[in-house]
Amino acid sequence: MQKILDEAVDYARNFLHQGQPASYIPELAKVNSQLLGAAIVTTEGKTYYSGNYKQHFTIQSISKPIALILALKDRSEQYVFSRVGMEPTGDAFNSIIKLETSESSKPLNPLINAGAIAIDSFIKGETVEDKFNRLLNFFRLLADNNQITYDVNVYKSEDSTGFKNRALANFIKDAGILNGDVEEVLELYFKQCSIKVSCKDIATIASVLASNGLNPFSKKRVCEKHYTRLVKTFMVTCGMYDASGEFAVKVGLPAKSGVAGGIMATVPEKMGIGVYSPNLDEKGNSVAGMKVLEYLSNRLDLSIF
Amino acid sequence: MQKILDEAVDYARNFLHQGQPASYIPELAKVNSQLLGAAIVTTEGKTYYSGNYKQHFTIQSISKPIALILALKDRSEQYVFSRVGMEPTGDAFNSIIKLETSESSKPLNPLINAGAIAIDSFIKGETVEDKFNRLLNFFRLLADNNQITYDVNVYKSEDSTGFKNRALANFIKDAGILNGDVEEVLELYFKQCSIKVSCKDIATIASVLASNGLNPFSKKRVCEKHYTRLVKTFMVTCGMYDASGEFAVKVGLPAKSGVAGGIMATVPEKMGIGVYSPNLDEKGNSVAGMKVLEYLSNRLDLSIF
Amino acid sequence: MQKILDEAVDYARNFLHQGQPASYIPELAKVNSQLLGAAIVTTEGKTYYSGNYKQHFTIQSISKPIALILALKDRSEQYVFSRVGMEPTGDAFNSIIKLETSESSKPLNPLINAGAIAIDSFIKGETVEDKFNRLLNFFRLLADNNQITYDVNVYKSEDSTGFKNRALANFIKDAGILNGDVEEVLELYFKQCSIKVSCKDIATIASVLASNGLNPFSKKRVCEKHYTRLVKTFMVTCGMYDASGEFAVKVGLPAKSGVAGGIMATVPEKMGIGVYSPNLDEKGNSVAGMKVLEYLSNRLDLSIF
Amino acid sequence: MQKILDEAVDYARNFLHQGQPASYIPELAKVNSQLLGAAIVTTEGKTYYSGNYKQHFTIQSISKPIALILALKDRSEQYVFSRVGMEPTGDAFNSIIKLETSESSKPLNPLINAGAIAIDSFIKGETVEDKFNRLLNFFRLLADNNQITYDVNVYKSEDSTGFKNRALANFIKDAGILNGDVEEVLELYFKQCSIKVSCKDIATIASVLASNGLNPFSKKRVCEKHYTRLVKTFMVTCGMYDASGEFAVKVGLPAKSGVAGGIMATVPEKMGIGVYSPNLDEKGNSVAGMKVLEYLSNRLDLSIF
Repeated sequence: MQKILDEAVDYARNFLHQGQPASYIPELAKVNSQLLGAAIVTTEGKTYYSGNYKQHFTIQSISKPIALILALKDRSEQYVFSRVGMEPTGDAFNSIIKLETSESSKPLNPLINAGAIAIDSFIKGETVEDKFNRLLNFFRLLADNNQITYDVNVYKSEDSTGFKNRALANFIKDAGILNGDVEEVLELYFKQCSIKVSCKDIATIASVLASNGLNPFSKKRVCEKHYTRLVKTFMVTCGMYDASGEFAVKVGLPAKSGVAGGIMATVPEKMGIGVYSPNLDEKGNSVAGMKVLEYLSNRLDLSIF
Repeated sequence: MQKILDEAVDYARNFLHQGQPASYIPELAKVNSQLLGAAIVTTEGKTYYSGNYKQHFTIQSISKPIALILALKDRSEQYVFSRVGMEPTGDAFNSIIKLETSESSKPLNPLINAGAIAIDSFIKGETVEDKFNRLLNFFRLLADNNQITYDVNVYKSEDSTGFKNRALANFIKDAGILNGDVEEVLELYFKQCSIKVSCKDIATIASVLASNGLNPFSKKRVCEKHYTRLVKTFMVTCGMYDASGEFAVKVGLPAKSGVAGGIMATVPEKMGIGVYSPNLDEKGNSVAGMKVLEYLSNRLDLSIF
Repeated sequence: MQKILDEAVDYARNFLHQGQPASYIPELAKVNSQLLGAAIVTTEGKTYYSGNYKQHFTIQSISKPIALILALKDRSEQYVFSRVGMEPTGDAFNSIIKLETSESSKPLNPLINAGAIAIDSFIKGETVEDKFNRLLNFFRLLADNNQITYDVNVYKSEDSTGFKNRALANFIKDAGILNGDVEEVLELYFKQCSIKVSCKDIATIASVLASNGLNPFSKKRVCEKHYTRLVKTFMVTCGMYDASGEFAVKVGLPAKSGVAGGIMATVPEKMGIGVYSPNLDEKGNSVAGMKVLEYLSNRLDLSIF
Repeated sequence: MQKILDEAVDYARNFLHQGQPASYIPELAKVNSQLLGAAIVTTEGKTYYSGNYKQHFTIQSISKPIALILALKDRSEQYVFSRVGMEPTGDAFNSIIKLETSESSKPLNPLINAGAIAIDSFIKGETVEDKFNRLLNFFRLLADNNQITYDVNVYKSEDSTGFKNRALANFIKDAGILNGDVEEVLELYFKQCSIKVSCKDIATIASVLASNGLNPFSKKRVCEKHYTRLVKTFMVTCGMYDASGEFAVKVGLPAKSGVAGGIMATVPEKMGIGVYSPNLDEKGNSVAGMKVLEYLSNRLDLSIF
């Protein structure tokens, strides 16, 4: 497995010159774009690493399925899905148009920005700080890593340039979807996106999803089976923005990418995979990161289809 | 003329039971919905009044063409119309969908909310207070009334419930259309909408437009001819929200309505008309107000077509 | 007046190198793109000509307001406008998107292709031939010219390449808007668009509209005042495709353009103007034709606003 | 297994009063709406039946993934997916809006009507008859049933009322996506939709997909592994119209439904399932059919996630 992972990373290195880092969050544009790392955590707790796997990066949209689980635990499926839909979308990840043409202004699913912001407004806590601490602790639990924290500079950068997310949040507030104060929900959302992780962290979370809820090292249950299955479904139908369909065809794994360059992929019953490389294609997915996953999927016949 | 105006108001009274006051701004919903007033100010300075013409109400969207003139004076046609379009739209007055499907995220025209918010960001001034004072003074000049001020309660109500306008403002900020700070521009916009006027005030402004820029009483020029013509054009093509086409067919006058129940209409070379009645139809236009204008247009053959 | 018209044409000649003929109808692309002609017919029956005013060209969309009048005569305002809307649109002239997002699939107005096709399905007649003959005779009556006929080659070209119009016609058939057989209505529509006219013909029709329904030479009434007013309104709000707003600001006249390069403009109470030049801008309007009208409007202060 | 299948059908019978048969194709509305049948064909060739499993019904949209395979064999992945996209959509199954707002007018995926019509235009053959015979023979091969034919009455009904499909076909012809003659492609498409199958037929096809291409009885390869995987992916992301996301969450199987009431579902490596019941929910999926699948998935833990 180590050999195959190294091969995958070597293969993906050929694509490091393609794409470019996300520029709309100024802080993200400062990164060394040639980084490439990968980690595998099997459901049996074996770990494999390759390339710049120690590098930390902000989790960004990879946080969305995790926040969804916490919202489901805090409220209920009925509560959440009466406010946010379950359907994939062929539109770009932060589209307003789908909000307005669909009858109810209900965000299409929890993985587009409008839906993810709504989801954050469902998380319980007395104050924003409480809510964020609950969320951060949930990430730490799933990633088996108590050191996880968030990047203040990225948070501030997102907050000061997040006009589109502010537009979306106000739009769903107007539609009666968003709970509570818009700016507080955005604070929670921007902080969540700024959580710093490594390839191993997201591979561990993905391994929990792969085993339907067990910590791969301690074998303790850290998440309900039903919720892990549910988020894996969303990861297949809408985890890779509007390249989700193509990714399903080519790789065939539940996965979620983030604009910092991370991708978290899960192989049901087998393993979690975390990859990182900052250059993104025009759909917002890590170019080299997808190549690592494509190589692994083909080489090990991992597709769920 | 007095007789005909009274007839028009009598006729319109039959429709006072239709429609209902705007409810999305809580402060507006408190009004006596049976009010109906009208005023005519001819370009020769003659005045005619009928019904509850002394009643004050907030100007709301009727302010948009006036703010547009000030923005054109402060910047230039080239500056303004490279950022905000000139085209009418069949969509509802605060639609985001048109912003997103059109290539450039350029608001379609200065009379939809997104365009009007952009226009406000073009108005010059050191501070928001400066900008608002310049705007207020311009309203006072055109209305020949130094007493005009704004309604603090309505302003606060709009500010605390204006999620859709906040969404629009952030959206055009993201698109690089809006100048300066989003919240400051919204403060200016909400205050502008909260300016209190009477039927006579808006009839006087409309008379200035009718005479291509002259104060009807002093005959002094208070506005450039070119700008008065320009805003009259927008009032025909998009002054009555998405009932503009139907209004053009039935009444045939440049007009602008506001959700507080006012309508400002102008009869080129002849007169300005101001009407007020709070009950709105589902398009957002004063039901009885439109009936007054329909009666006058038919009786006096005022259509410009 | 003759001198001013010649000046206008001379001025517009400077723009003959801009734009290009419509290419989507192959037959239209074969034209000499440097042609430029203009005609004025006053409501008193005086005529002025300049440039290639004798050139014949197909009427295309200029036919839409005329067909609308016949449909209104055959049915009623209530019938027509319960099926086709009255609102302008900022979208391109043959957009399907507006049909689908608006609740009722009702075409927004009679001057977009979907609306114009629906209008043709309202025209009475036993057979398509009957219907077309009634329509052709109505054009002859308004243009005071019994020689008017249609161009068979252009008709065939439109019919064999009109996939978008076929899409629109089937879409409104599905929505229950279109009367009768889709292919028969399209035959009528394509033949109507292929009617051959000269600048004088459309100037004469425009003069009828200017005088609210009188033949400018015989002074006989050939159209109801109400209908002439109604179509002039649509010509202002949506006569120049999605440049209608800008045209209203710059020229300020009810006008309708066609993709063959003609524009019919009307100056209420005064005159009809017909211009022709095949090169179109990206909105589908004759570049030099608009320049003639802009010159005349500014020079003679013709704007209705 | 037989017992569990009977339980599933018994459970689903409770929902037979919900929904109603498709009415937009008149011929489909004539059916006995209380029918309910199911068949399972395992990849080892074992068969289980329950309820009205002998009933024949038209295949409708269930044919789309099969036609896609033939088009891929006739052309290539590169050819097909440069013309039709791979992305799911949250819109209704025959939406035009997605065609027009996406840049290239490329249908989003091969399972929406616009995409499926395009796919049919890629199938090779000298004449429409040839093409249809090739398609029909491919269905017979995959279903292991040489008796399969099409329902002439349903075909005629679809052809005479298929205005929306005609609109879509003409729209993609205009965009340069559709190969050849519009009416011929529609003939092929309507005939394909009218192919008559039983639950066993579609269960057998689904079993071929489950085993990555082998006939379950003879074990002979009848389809390339790569293509079976590819269509299973589309079945997950967009097989159940705009309830695909919800179905993935609740059932978690690649499936394709048709408006006649059939659903074909595949359990990778294990079995194919065919269900039939004519009453549809508002999304266009068989109500009782989905209940059978939901029961089986939960009872046997079949979800791929």
